[in-house]
Amino acid sequence: MSGDFLALAQAGVQKLSPYVPGKPVDELARELDIDPARIIKLASNENPMGASPKALSAIRDALAELTRYPDGNGFDLKQRLSDRYGVNANQVTLGNGSNDILEIVARAYLAPGLNAVFSEHAFAIYPIVTQAVGADARVAKAKDWGHDLPAMLAAIDSNTRVVFIANPNNPTGTWFGPNALADFLNDVPKDVLVVLDEAYIEYAEGAELPDGLKFLADYPNLLVSRTFSKAFGLASLRVGYALSSPVVADVLNRVRQPFNVNSLALAAACAALDDVEYVAESRRLNEAGMQQMEDGLRALDLSWIPSRANFIAVDLGREGASVYEGLLREGVIVRPVAGYGMPNHLRVSIGLPAENSRFLEALSKVLARG
Amino acid sequence: MSGDFLALAQAGVQKLSPYVPGKPVDELARELDIDPARIIKLASNENPMGASPKALSAIRDALAELTRYPDGNGFDLKQRLSDRYGVNANQVTLGNGSNDILEIVARAYLAPGLNAVFSEHAFAIYPIVTQAVGADARVAKAKDWGHDLPAMLAAIDSNTRVVFIANPNNPTGTWFGPNALADFLNDVPKDVLVVLDEAYIEYAEGAELPDGLKFLADYPNLLVSRTFSKAFGLASLRVGYALSSPVVADVLNRVRQPFNVNSLALAAACAALDDVEYVAESRRLNEAGMQQMEDGLRALDLSWIPSRANFIAVDLGREGASVYEGLLREGVIVRPVAGYGMPNHLRVSIGLPAENSRFLEALSKVLARG
Repeated sequence: MSGDFLALAQAGVQKLSPYVPGKPVDELARELDIDPARIIKLASNENPMGASPKALSAIRDALAELTRYPDGNGFDLKQRLSDRYGVNANQVTLGNGSNDILEIVARAYLAPGLNAVFSEHAFAIYPIVTQAVGADARVAKAKDWGHDLPAMLAAIDSNTRVVFIANPNNPTGTWFGPNALADFLNDVPKDVLVVLDEAYIEYAEGAELPDGLKFLADYPNLLVSRTFSKAFGLASLRVGYALSSPVVADVLNRVRQPFNVNSLALAAACAALDDVEYVAESRRLNEAGMQQMEDGLRALDLSWIPSRANFIAVDLGREGASVYEGLLREGVIVRPVAGYGMPNHLRVSIGLPAENSRFLEALSKVLARG
Repeated sequence: MSGDFLALAQAGVQKLSPYVPGKPVDELARELDIDPARIIKLASNENPMGASPKALSAIRDALAELTRYPDGNGFDLKQRLSDRYGVNANQVTLGNGSNDILEIVARAYLAPGLNAVFSEHAFAIYPIVTQAVGADARVAKAKDWGHDLPAMLAAIDSNTRVVFIANPNNPTGTWFGPNALADFLNDVPKDVLVVLDEAYIEYAEGAELPDGLKFLADYPNLLVSRTFSKAFGLASLRVGYALSSPVVADVLNRVRQPFNVNSLALAAACAALDDVEYVAESRRLNEAGMQQMEDGLRALDLSWIPSRANFIAVDLGREGASVYEGLLREGVIVRPVAGYGMPNHLRVSIGLPAENSRFLEALSKVLARG
């Protein structure tokens, strides 16, 4: 080996394909040479409402300390999370988005020879963080596009250290109920860490979906991952967190970079957590938008996967790629999901009423072209 | 193994001791029950000048897009770095602080059975990122507190994949010249990645210290790591970057989290890079402050390690721990460095003139108590 720094990289890393994010508005504006203001992006499940005024104000206050390192312990945010969710501060791990949490879990508990179990059509970051540490992925077949928890249980073997499950799931929007979760947790081996990814839970929790936090006390092998990027409206700032047993949190906090969450993100997250009206309004807006989308899709004679999140996977009944390209030319960015084994679907985030209308009109136009 | 999630963690992780940051002002204020405004912190080599007005203005402009994900490719910042430093955008890897860069390097190129070489008294993150992936550390003896580059060369063996060197070095402030770097690079095996950590270079570059970037074209196994946390004044925001060969950058960008640098950080870094006056003034202020510190220490009959960075390691001629504690009680936070094999030193960041005076007075008082 003489200086071939691809061959010198770890085997898992060599085979790694990076995550493909939703196309940024500026990028499409450059490509089409049009005003970014004429483009709508429904591609990354962002909160369409604009930021919480409380979060904005907290950021402005924090600007006075811009030259100072963040509080590496995230004292204030951990305190507020523990007050809000009834856990101890030593059960909290803060992440640079929940992506960071998922990666830290993989680095702590996976390695070559070990494996993670997750579902077909699951979030792309699960295979990426697994591959990056050279561990194997055991992918359980989905059922009606959603998690088949018994099939996931059956996929666990003696080398399984982590199971990733998402409720609701991204990109399908599918969900499972409290009894299904309880059955699953009762049957999972005690030395397998169950990562319950609840990135979208604020849009969904209620009678139909369990609150994962209620299971923490009974299952020390459960970790609940959440984010400020969706209903709390702070995607730009990268704040996620894990709630788990203190032992798991201690291990994850060793692996975590000392200043993984930055100062403005910490300040904004504290304020956003207190802004209960913002989150409630986000949910109301999302429910109305979901209804609008379903009505519009029905009028176009299209079907979709029922969703409890802030997006909907539309079934085009044929390859979605050309429809995606057609929508781009109309200035509408949605998300292709062929990489998730869903070539006939496009994932569309629920936007403001006018954005949803614009998407539906553009879709109608693109489909009419055949 | 029945649910022991410490024993289930990777071997390297189990033995990991997290980085200990400088004590935050708020934490000391809580402990002493005093007004945070009465405390000065010279513990984290932060820029004492307050933020660049251009960076602040860029952040305010970026607040309009708070609910949107960052540009995962960091298009604008990469473009500006490549313009400024005469490299191609495909040679840039952005990091959530340069800490992130160092960790990404370790995850890409180190593993159990491989090793990293670094110096005694080197930055604490080098052993941490090495240990976290289960690789071995080969620590070369220092010479006059600084890097002994020939000793580091001698420490390289067939399992060495990475060498970490810092110029100037933290926490000693020591440095080496262009010829020493050239000799080192000429002799390092071509399949060993040399990570040249230039976190403090903006305070130091000139006749005495090499500009690592000038060596990039000739040494494809060289990576230069830099940060916006010091002379650019953005420690709170976590922006660092690596410049390297395109192959190394491609590998690192696979490992990097897709949104590792957040939107406000990207916007602020672009603006800070353009604020050449701010950086120049940071350097002038630091040079004057260094002189003030040296004069003050001389008057107290103390010695120190000559430094080209924005801090100085003071030799107390006895264990520094009690002096550190005494300074805390005076409301002055500095950095103990016993963990760096320097129990008789304290590392003190160069502050504003009034802060330097206050430190020197407090030190005089604490030492007089004996």
